[in-house]
Order: sequence, then structure tokens, then C-alpha cells
Amino acid sequence: MKYYSYETFKLDTNKLIKQVKLFEADAIVGIARGGLILSHCISEGLNIRNVQSLRTELYDDTQKREKITIHDDCNLRGLKRVLVVDDIADSGETLDAVMAELTQKYKDIEFKSATLFYKKTSTYQPHFWINEATEWIEFFWEKDFTA
Amino acid sequence: MKYYSYETFKLDTNKLIKQVKLFEADAIVGIARGGLILSHCISEGLNIRNVQSLRTELYDDTQKREKITIHDDCNLRGLKRVLVVDDIADSGETLDAVMAELTQKYKDIEFKSATLFYKKTSTYQPHFWINEATEWIEFFWEKDFTA
Repeated sequence: MKYYSYETFKLDTNKLIKQVKLFEADAIVGIARGGLILSHCISEGLNIRNVQSLRTELYDDTQKREKITIHDDCNLRGLKRVLVVDDIADSGETLDAVMAELTQKYKDIEFKSATLFYKKTSTYQPHFWINEATEWIEFFWEKDFTA
Repeated sequence: MKYYSYETFKLDTNKLIKQVKLFEADAIVGIARGGLILSHCISEGLNIRNVQSLRTELYDDTQKREKITIHDDCNLRGLKRVLVVDDIADSGETLDAVMAELTQKYKDIEFKSATLFYKKTSTYQPHFWINEATEWIEFFWEKDFTA
């Protein structure tokens, strides 16, 4: 398990911003919860005011297989290029499902995805990513705040 | 102008989490963009999975007065207590408008608001806040990320 501090996050996010800048996104969609802080920081770096979020839920169906429900309350009508942001592509399941749903729903929008970490065994490879994940990452937001 | 670092944010947010914990919110709504990071961190501290966001836009009407448009794509149906989060109550205009719209729209939900900073001249006083704002705050997310 590796603690991923704010200081490291800052360095990596600035690298990621340089990459995604060329895509010239009109809006950013952060996948809650893991992608929320990252989506905010990228939007500040690129001065993109339109930041939205969506939620996903994993549940077991009757065959006890994990399925994903996407709560997409975004409003992306009229946009051209949207950047979808999450912290990590681990199994890849979440980003796979989200990108499929969004591209299906908004056929006129070009979607690209960005993460801080990408695991080589992920079923989905983000368009932009910074680090290969080789161990379990403990993000600072999961560790630094307690009730 | 005062730079507000991640380290200070971490201390303040943990204090804020202790305050808002008693409200026992079902969900958190972050006001984009300023409230996004804070809403994520509070949700981690309190283990609240339902985090949503809404956007506001200031525009000049024909009389050149500033008005606020709220892009509320949240889905709060069935919830009991919702915490609305922003970084600062400065003029108070944003939180005033957002709280009025949400309480009007969802009559069965109890809403409370939380910010890191509150300016005594604000027209709106959040239920929970940590610091009085006496000068212009430069939040770390506005300074630490560049294209």
C-alpha cells in the first residue's frame, strides 16, 4: 500500500494538465467520488468553468455478479469535447461503463478520459494517464480526513 | 491576499467535519467550482457516498445587475438531510440563491450549508463555518495548478 500525498498529486496533476490541454475540452466530468478533486484541479489549471460530476454504484445482481449503475445527472447538451476524469483505471470497469454510456447518449460529443493511475490489467485504457499502478494506492483524500 | 495551503485546508476541513457530523447528512452537494474539493473531503471523512455537484453562473442582465443562474442537475429525490458545501460565503449571493432554490424545489428535505470561510458582510450565514474572511483568500487549488 502506497500513500499518495497532496504534494505528489500536485506534481502529477500538473503533468496531466499539460497532456489534456491539447484536447481543448469544453467541460469536465468527474466520476464521484475518486475523480472529484482531480476534476476540480484540472479545471482550475485549464480555466474550464463547466465542471460536472456523475456517480456510479456497484451492486450484486441475482447471479451475484457485480454490475454498475451510473447516475448520470450531467447536462452536456451542445458541448463538443468533454474530458471524463477519475483517479485510477484499476479493473477498468467503471470507466468502461461510463464512457460507453456517455458516447451512446451524446453521439455528437467527443469524449476523452484522464486518470492519475492506470493498471496494465485494466479492461479500459484512459486516453491520458500519468503513473502505472503496481500496488494499492491510498489517496490523500482517503487518509487525511476523519470524523 | 492570503495563500490558503493544502495543509491549512486539511486542519480546517477536519474541524468542519466534526461540526457537520451531527447533522447526519444523507448526501452532499458541492457548489462548483469552489466547493468541489471540500465536498469530496467531507464525504470521505463522513463516509457519505452520495456526493453531487451543481454549477452557478453570474451574468449581467439588461439593467447590468449581476444575476445568478443555477444549473441544478442534482437528483435528491427521497433524501432527508442534504449538506450544501462551498469554499466561502463572501457576498453570500451564491449560497443565498442556491439554498433558496433547493429548499423551494425539495420541500421534504432539510438542507444545511457549510463553508470554510464566512465574511461578516455576507448576506447569507452558513450553518457551519470555520474562519472569518478578513482579506482575499487565494485557495491552493487556484494557485497550485497551471497549464
